Amino acid sequence: MKPYGPMMAALVALAAPLAAQTPAQTPHPAPSEIVAAAPASDWVEIDPADLLVMTLAPDARGRERRVIIQLMPAPFSQGWVGNIRTLAAAHWWDGLSINRVQDNYVVQWGDADGEDAAKARALPEGLRVVPEGEYTVSDESLGEAEDEWRGLHPQAIESAEAALTALEAAIENGELRSDGRVRDPYATMHSLYAGWPIAGISEDDHGQFWPVHCYGMVGVGRNLSPDTGSGAELYTVIGHAPRHLDRNIALVGRVIEGIEHLSSLPRGTGPLGFYETAEERVPIVSVRLATELPTAEQPRFEYLSTGSESFARYADARANRRDPFFNVPAGGADICNIPVPVRRAGR
Amino acid sequence: MKPYGPMMAALVALAAPLAAQTPAQTPHPAPSEIVAAAPASDWVEIDPADLLVMTLAPDARGRERRVIIQLMPAPFSQGWVGNIRTLAAAHWWDGLSINRVQDNYVVQWGDADGEDAAKARALPEGLRVVPEGEYTVSDESLGEAEDEWRGLHPQAIESAEAALTALEAAIENGELRSDGRVRDPYATMHSLYAGWPIAGISEDDHGQFWPVHCYGMVGVGRNLSPDTGSGAELYTVIGHAPRHLDRNIALVGRVIEGIEHLSSLPRGTGPLGFYETAEERVPIVSVRLATELPTAEQPRFEYLSTGSESFARYADARANRRDPFFNVPAGGADICNIPVPVRRAGR
Repeated sequence: MKPYGPMMAALVALAAPLAAQTPAQTPHPAPSEIVAAAPASDWVEIDPADLLVMTLAPDARGRERRVIIQLMPAPFSQGWVGNIRTLAAAHWWDGLSINRVQDNYVVQWGDADGEDAAKARALPEGLRVVPEGEYTVSDESLGEAEDEWRGLHPQAIESAEAALTALEAAIENGELRSDGRVRDPYATMHSLYAGWPIAGISEDDHGQFWPVHCYGMVGVGRNLSPDTGSGAELYTVIGHAPRHLDRNIALVGRVIEGIEHLSSLPRGTGPLGFYETAEERVPIVSVRLATELPTAEQPRFEYLSTGSESFARYADARANRRDPFFNVPAGGADICNIPVPVRRAGR
Repeated sequence: MKPYGPMMAALVALAAPLAAQTPAQTPHPAPSEIVAAAPASDWVEIDPADLLVMTLAPDARGRERRVIIQLMPAPFSQGWVGNIRTLAAAHWWDGLSINRVQDNYVVQWGDADGEDAAKARALPEGLRVVPEGEYTVSDESLGEAEDEWRGLHPQAIESAEAALTALEAAIENGELRSDGRVRDPYATMHSLYAGWPIAGISEDDHGQFWPVHCYGMVGVGRNLSPDTGSGAELYTVIGHAPRHLDRNIALVGRVIEGIEHLSSLPRGTGPLGFYETAEERVPIVSVRLATELPTAEQPRFEYLSTGSESFARYADARANRRDPFFNVPAGGADICNIPVPVRRAGR
């Protein structure tokens, strides 16, 4: 009678830093304090080549509105990410708009006339039609991709290797099943992989991984299957994680600064939160790859390595708040309630 | 070797309608279509005595902003709910303001000068100091409370009884443990109780239940323990469910209409998202119990009985989208991603 046997323990370990112990300390630091105290060596710089800068028209008071998006690393969603690089290089979004704001769901931008062939803006040459199979990644390609990642923190790779090892053990034991959910109702496991929230599932003898629809994640709008979207129509999550979209839509990045310029926009009153009049739409001045900006203007960001000891303590504190405000530590957290800390670099 | 034995099955059943099967049907209806097709008998009217109407100052274009809040039923948080009834009857919030908007977290309202004894608005007579023990409810009081609920749909009571029976069985079997999480990283079980999201845990030989911090839930601001807040300072969730607050703060209701008037407000730039200037605060014109309004003006709402067959199908469809847009059903959902349908009554 072992309802929670060693395999279960392995999976809990896979859900990783939650199992870490906070060193005895009084008072118990808040998650934000742990992040602030993390040594510089625990932070990983984000390559400016992976950043998009979206500038919106100024707000009603004339204040600048700038949104910074980090693109997702290999091996996830790279077909769409490549298209987005092409679209940004072509300045394709300049002069288009934010067209949809649905409360507790998404903000969406692109070509408001995209469905009207006579008025739609032409797409640049060279966009790939990405197959649905690329919504997820196999364990093999996850392993192979490690060598390709640019500038990855060694600890992030270690973390990924540990996840793969545990997955392989679970597959060998034949105990991973899609109906045996641990901590995550949407997957048999979840983890943080090179700074990104990833879920996974095992079916038959192979595993699949995919990025997770947490708050601020950026995805690719599409029409009905088999369409997968080009990447020209994008959205970001502004509510509770809509994880039923996982594996059904490509996720290509996340907003790392300025999401308030999207999440605080007036909600659209049309079906699905689309704006009903052109006046309501928010003009996009430009979308640029950061590397197209003068070096001095390129935004520099870094994230707290998800393989670092600081991150393990942060995640534990998120799951078990013991700082003065809290009476009862939760004893757990869902993956979207452990946001990976990202900050401006050069502090 | 039974990693997922009958007890596990019982818990999954407790996590309830997710296990229900959608009758064979082509095409598979979307959750919204199931709700629209639910018979009138599956809807439960919400007593206007449990509704608060908060009217904000008109927006920049002069449009009305009204927020409707449903108060939580017994046996949950009734000390604070009683205080809120007293405060509303005293028109205590009239002329106060929304003072804090923190992105992906909360909007908070009350007395901006509440921390300044010289300027704070006096509280009305008769407010209770509610003990921390009332953040949760024991299984005994959950059972006893059934008779006290006004106007409860019989199926809602049946649903509650089924939850209690399953909990009792789990306790007898001694298999419920706080480290054995099923579908919910924050609790050993969750369910929907008379239309509200509730989580529970079993420790030693008794169970505890508490309401859950989903999007739109309304809670009571407080200072450090042992303060529990009076109910004068309130907030609502406008982001991913901050479930680490469960059992640490009283939840007293939920916004059932008009949350966009709160969630789309400009984010505060001070610490914790507080507005830094008085000009940024949004004036509250009035907060009224609906029963204080003329009968014809009282808002009438109803919710889809969480014990109904329609709700079971809706919840299954939320967890397993099979309508045309979706390729892969998730196979599960977290409790905050199955919002209980609420609509204007009299359709």
